[in-house]
Amino acid sequence: MRAALDLCREVGYRKLSIEGIAARAGVGKNTIYRWWPSKSAVLLDGLVSAVTDVAFPHTADVAADLKTQMVTVAGSIASPDIGPHYAALIGEAQQDPELARALWDRLISHLVAAAVQRIQLAQRQGQIRPDLAPDLVVELLYGPIYYRYLIRQRLPDEEHINAIVDTALAGLAPSPASSQTAPPA
Amino acid sequence: MRAALDLCREVGYRKLSIEGIAARAGVGKNTIYRWWPSKSAVLLDGLVSAVTDVAFPHTADVAADLKTQMVTVAGSIASPDIGPHYAALIGEAQQDPELARALWDRLISHLVAAAVQRIQLAQRQGQIRPDLAPDLVVELLYGPIYYRYLIRQRLPDEEHINAIVDTALAGLAPSPASSQTAPPA
Repeated sequence: MRAALDLCREVGYRKLSIEGIAARAGVGKNTIYRWWPSKSAVLLDGLVSAVTDVAFPHTADVAADLKTQMVTVAGSIASPDIGPHYAALIGEAQQDPELARALWDRLISHLVAAAVQRIQLAQRQGQIRPDLAPDLVVELLYGPIYYRYLIRQRLPDEEHINAIVDTALAGLAPSPASSQTAPPA
Repeated sequence: MRAALDLCREVGYRKLSIEGIAARAGVGKNTIYRWWPSKSAVLLDGLVSAVTDVAFPHTADVAADLKTQMVTVAGSIASPDIGPHYAALIGEAQQDPELARALWDRLISHLVAAAVQRIQLAQRQGQIRPDLAPDLVVELLYGPIYYRYLIRQRLPDEEHINAIVDTALAGLAPSPASSQTAPPA
């Protein structure tokens, strides 16, 4: 997995091959094929082992905890060891439903589960509206990050992440916010 | 462009080729190459011509107008004529900076500009906080849609889009929302 990450960093995802990974790892390519069906599978396992620092702090302030975790994760994704590989796999997954499922099962679902848990705690503590589905809260907080990453091709810095969290919590409408969400006549 | 869209729908992006597009269009492949450098460039031009219905209504209710436009755009992307091609190009763009730039210049920047214009009007009318950068508002509204589309591999239905707009406007924090955004001690 380390050989796959290193080699992908050097040559890029397109030129990555099972043969190349095997050569770098000093094994035969049948050894690789015994454990992984494709280059994307090796790389995904490499990513799973590299993206470890996704835990949330549990202070009394959910906004601060969200910011801390999101800045850490964005910093980790910004590293050349992870970022380009992660974007390549998400890109490849658009054409490969099996990879999309693996990416979800082995990596993203765990990130989402950790976020849902932290959000549910904040809901019990009265810091996030208890009527909202935690999954919707995840989309509103992390959607802007992925949008920037995949569509604008850049990761938000700390200041921008703080603005996303603060604005998502406070809402786009001038307060009192509730008056803005009434349905039209 | 029509030939590219049709063929891509039938065989998928991976098997799409300039030769195939030329054959379907009944021209030589040099004719295609005279106008477009790659299959992704033809397909992008096809998408640009197909994604036309992105204008915003201008009623007195920005929430209703955002919902109307987002439901229309999501419906358009959900069509088998557009959706898989758009996801394929965004995916491909993760490995191809030139395509990423073309996708932005020729398609996405126009969508964003239309949204920014509608948001600025709402800010002048006091329906969206005037202190927010319109680009940040775009990220908070459209980020969740792209997140669902590219990471969860599904498009939100009308009910879900309504929930995204209402929640983004009202905020995740219980009202009064402003108390949640104070920095921690």
